[in-house]
Amino acid sequence: MSKIKVKIPATTANMGPGFDTLGMALKLYNEIEVEETYTETEIYNDNVKSSDDYKDNLIYKSIINALDRFHYKYNGFKINVIKCDIPMSRGLGSSAACIVGGVSAANVIMGNRLTIEEIISIATDIEGHPDNVVPAVVGGMVVSINEDGMVNYSKISMPGQLKFAAMIPEFEVSTELSRKVLPEFYKKQDCIFNISRATMLVSSLYNEDFNSLRMCFDDKIHQPYRNKLINNLDSIFAKSKELGSVGEFISGSGSTLMAVLNKDEDNFVNKMGEFLNQLDDRWKIILLKPDMEGVKVM
Amino acid sequence: MSKIKVKIPATTANMGPGFDTLGMALKLYNEIEVEETYTETEIYNDNVKSSDDYKDNLIYKSIINALDRFHYKYNGFKINVIKCDIPMSRGLGSSAACIVGGVSAANVIMGNRLTIEEIISIATDIEGHPDNVVPAVVGGMVVSINEDGMVNYSKISMPGQLKFAAMIPEFEVSTELSRKVLPEFYKKQDCIFNISRATMLVSSLYNEDFNSLRMCFDDKIHQPYRNKLINNLDSIFAKSKELGSVGEFISGSGSTLMAVLNKDEDNFVNKMGEFLNQLDDRWKIILLKPDMEGVKVM
Repeated sequence: MSKIKVKIPATTANMGPGFDTLGMALKLYNEIEVEETYTETEIYNDNVKSSDDYKDNLIYKSIINALDRFHYKYNGFKINVIKCDIPMSRGLGSSAACIVGGVSAANVIMGNRLTIEEIISIATDIEGHPDNVVPAVVGGMVVSINEDGMVNYSKISMPGQLKFAAMIPEFEVSTELSRKVLPEFYKKQDCIFNISRATMLVSSLYNEDFNSLRMCFDDKIHQPYRNKLINNLDSIFAKSKELGSVGEFISGSGSTLMAVLNKDEDNFVNKMGEFLNQLDDRWKIILLKPDMEGVKVM
Repeated sequence: MSKIKVKIPATTANMGPGFDTLGMALKLYNEIEVEETYTETEIYNDNVKSSDDYKDNLIYKSIINALDRFHYKYNGFKINVIKCDIPMSRGLGSSAACIVGGVSAANVIMGNRLTIEEIISIATDIEGHPDNVVPAVVGGMVVSINEDGMVNYSKISMPGQLKFAAMIPEFEVSTELSRKVLPEFYKKQDCIFNISRATMLVSSLYNEDFNSLRMCFDDKIHQPYRNKLINNLDSIFAKSKELGSVGEFISGSGSTLMAVLNKDEDNFVNKMGEFLNQLDDRWKIILLKPDMEGVKVM
């Protein structure tokens, strides 16, 4: 049977005030090849066979999750991860990329019977939340709402010149721990703080109003609590402001930190790179544009 | 000295999920005439002298509040309220209209020395919050943030055909009581609920996506608690849905209820009018378009 090639973008979620709400696709990709076979499943990394149990592989699990919903009969698959540029467990949507890649491949196997809404719904069901899944599927910046298993989303128009400097540390932050440090209850003023910032963020992006944007990435719902899980966050954010960023936020639940830039991005990357080099942990910085297309099946 | 004529629009605040954040000006107006005099202040309602103490008058208090900030010397004013279409204490921004009218008149008295930002800042300081003041000054739908006395705002673009049916009861809701019924703390899921709805509301308005709009007026921060302060709210909202509205919300802290319409508005007003007539309290319904210009000095 023929090889299905799928390219899936990295994603950044939350984006400051938009906790469990906002997400955006980035021009940083994983690529996988999937081939239905008559034998047991085999996983390859860049054509080298993996010794890991395929039953634990998230791409595999997502493929069969989608196929099983439609009672599609299969024997196995050859899954070849030919490109894996999205770092794992760094808050850049690597698991959403596996899931969206797997569900998209399953869709081709079943003769493209799924709508985009169904792909989103299945992938969200596997991931547990839509913030990374939706932008990985449709591209761009998106607000998503998951209500009783129905995912609604709306695309947000963004100024073309915005770039995002991802500052990626060597250490991971466990998603479980990053959930656990959050309180169950919030002060009314903190709710209003985030409602107003998230709302103005969207409006300022549509209006291309960079002066207003500066205050719109502030957050009181998750970042103040996750701060302590990411070494040097405060000094990195302060340096980012000093270097002229439009805003900063924790990507997903970390560990990657993101700076939003509308000018002088090369200078920012150089100076921030020097700053990060002086820290105790190893960090790398990469400059990314938003991906506007989402997952691509080739 | 010459007469200053000021026309100020009604405003609706909160608009569902945008608690203390969103506001919009409406084509329903108060008009005042202000004249500086050499004698003590006198208040007139449509050219009939009022016997109330002028020192309690909010227009007067707003005029002198603004003048005092710049040490402008005055004796008194003739304040004539020539049109008062904004009902008082019904959540339609009647006090913001008095304040914005007074500050705008004071600005003319001082030779138009204030910027729009200064008018907003002084009026917000008098009112205590910017949600009604900002749309009353700049018109349209607006998201506002008051941070350390600095008011930032961003205008939201709206589909031209949207209309708003204001359902105004004979009873008032005290602003104090409507604040008191709110909890001090909210569950994380309720915060996320409002962050996502407010964000998608703005995005759906920009995208003119009426299907998404339907879920975007829901709220878990203030309306569920204020519900009991407004008789028949649930049945009125249910009737509004049945009649094909895009959404419903409490205007400000009530007592006015608002339905958002994108079609068949005459049918809505007729049928809803019949429904309201059967209720124990007296209600009136008026169909309003957004005002896009804000306060006008003539």
